[in-house]
Amino acid sequence: MGGDHGPSVTIPAAISFAKREPEAELILVGLENVIRAELKKHHAENLPRISVQHASEQVTMDDPLEVALRRKKDSSMRVAVEQVKDGKAHAAVSAGNTGALMAVSRYVLKTMAGVDRPAICSILPNEKNGPTYMLDLGANVDCEPHHLHQFAIMGSVLVSAMEGIARPTIGLLNVGTEDIKGNEVVKLTSKLLQADHERGALNFHGNVEGNDIFKGTVDLVVCDGFVGNVTLKAVEGLGHFVKSVITTEFKRNIFTMLGALIGNGALKAMKNKFNPSRYNGASLLGLRGLVFKSHGGADAYSFEWAIRRAYDAAKNDVQAHLSTMIAELMPRSTETTQEPV
Amino acid sequence: MGGDHGPSVTIPAAISFAKREPEAELILVGLENVIRAELKKHHAENLPRISVQHASEQVTMDDPLEVALRRKKDSSMRVAVEQVKDGKAHAAVSAGNTGALMAVSRYVLKTMAGVDRPAICSILPNEKNGPTYMLDLGANVDCEPHHLHQFAIMGSVLVSAMEGIARPTIGLLNVGTEDIKGNEVVKLTSKLLQADHERGALNFHGNVEGNDIFKGTVDLVVCDGFVGNVTLKAVEGLGHFVKSVITTEFKRNIFTMLGALIGNGALKAMKNKFNPSRYNGASLLGLRGLVFKSHGGADAYSFEWAIRRAYDAAKNDVQAHLSTMIAELMPRSTETTQEPV
Repeated sequence: MGGDHGPSVTIPAAISFAKREPEAELILVGLENVIRAELKKHHAENLPRISVQHASEQVTMDDPLEVALRRKKDSSMRVAVEQVKDGKAHAAVSAGNTGALMAVSRYVLKTMAGVDRPAICSILPNEKNGPTYMLDLGANVDCEPHHLHQFAIMGSVLVSAMEGIARPTIGLLNVGTEDIKGNEVVKLTSKLLQADHERGALNFHGNVEGNDIFKGTVDLVVCDGFVGNVTLKAVEGLGHFVKSVITTEFKRNIFTMLGALIGNGALKAMKNKFNPSRYNGASLLGLRGLVFKSHGGADAYSFEWAIRRAYDAAKNDVQAHLSTMIAELMPRSTETTQEPV
Repeated sequence: MGGDHGPSVTIPAAISFAKREPEAELILVGLENVIRAELKKHHAENLPRISVQHASEQVTMDDPLEVALRRKKDSSMRVAVEQVKDGKAHAAVSAGNTGALMAVSRYVLKTMAGVDRPAICSILPNEKNGPTYMLDLGANVDCEPHHLHQFAIMGSVLVSAMEGIARPTIGLLNVGTEDIKGNEVVKLTSKLLQADHERGALNFHGNVEGNDIFKGTVDLVVCDGFVGNVTLKAVEGLGHFVKSVITTEFKRNIFTMLGALIGNGALKAMKNKFNPSRYNGASLLGLRGLVFKSHGGADAYSFEWAIRRAYDAAKNDVQAHLSTMIAELMPRSTETTQEPV
């Protein structure tokens, strides 16, 4: 039910995915009559691997966390996450409010043993034509070194399972590459990661700078949720700016319109290269179950990518890998895990 | 002598600026024979408003701060800043190592009375076709609320003097616009700025997010140097990525090349819109004298913009405005100003 477009996007995406993946089973969670009507519209009301789970409420983008957590107990978001908790689904996907999704997921699924704080891991395109994974992107605004250390471990497991890279390279986001650079939290984190690297547990590349995200210097960029969120939104903002200028300038006169027409292939290729669709689907890591967050503005094509990520994560058994690595690598938790309710 | 290209860029830029501004006087600081040879090359050895000040050493991009500060006492960077201290110049401009320039400037000029920490204020283009000022961009990686508060005051004065805006709008960079968002430092800073707003001292818009930088939501974006540096470099990295994809895609085949040719005007207009040249010249704010930092990779056109910023700042008496506002607005310093030597 979530995102800017609701079932008109999520349901065609689910139908398309079910047709493409003969082993996939999908449970559509939300207002049953709305979902069934949308399925019918796409002649998919009798697809055998799609079922409907009714949920009477929705979390809106403006709902405070308290409402999402305590008032709307039959929200589509919560019921979807409960499918995972109850073992009825391997993963949940939502295009709803990020903060609410994290809070509901933490509350329903609880945090994984050994993990202090779940984090959000997103994917960005890079110049090497591959993905750069980056976390945390907003769940944790005040971080201690051991939190960033945990993010690095969780992110590394995710990249490894999703991309088939045995030892993903990890970069610590900083204001310079030298060891002496950075604030106190980052300097201490660097020491923790260096120690893991020396005993062969993690493949720590060292400090990276903002531009390394798009250079593709490392497979995984680690930062706190404040820096990650601001950086991601600044980058999205520049992307929007560039897009609007391209559109305006190519519409300015007949010559440039002709140019745009002929150069259309190039523009399409560009769009494809930067298209965030391919990279839609952020992982909520460190919970006792898989939850994926689609961009709220996603179209059906893009939302299908988020479903694919969730499917691949379940198939590649990300949760089991996470549990193993956390048990092996993670120092004992230094704080009591606090659930928000 | 600084930057990636040295006198081959800085000197043509200085000559061009001197010709354009009949009241400007320029002192070129560095190796006298190199500078005179470059002036001669451009038939400018006898321009009356350009003089040369010899300095026997250069700070390189790799020099540790200690070397820049203690060993190279006759560096072009230091001698240029000394021209300001000695009242021989109204402002210094350098394309050299940012960290070294800040350290040398702090050491030579000292921090302005009432200011705990100088900051670096840069300028970015926005969708409203205006500049968004942003600070701090790297000088201060660990900030307390009163530091961010001081940055807001200094930045506001700069925008006001440079852009002729009586009450520039100030945004505090955060992970959301609501008051409850953010880490502890940002939440406390917001209260300080809100108090200034309520008594009419500053025009505080409230929290802004990363994408607001390019939307042009506010005239001035305030953040700590860690967040500012990472964000700026991420944005530069995306810019580089976009540029490389445009170039590659338009070269791919004859049709797209033809398209590029016809659409050339549009591409030029785009380039002009994003060209960081127009926005070259970051201000080192909070020192007892004006210092400007050009991008190291600047060409002559771009370096001339940095000279222009320094010239405009001196002409608009930014230092005097800063002193007045700081005396009026800034609460007593809570820490002793520490000079790096």
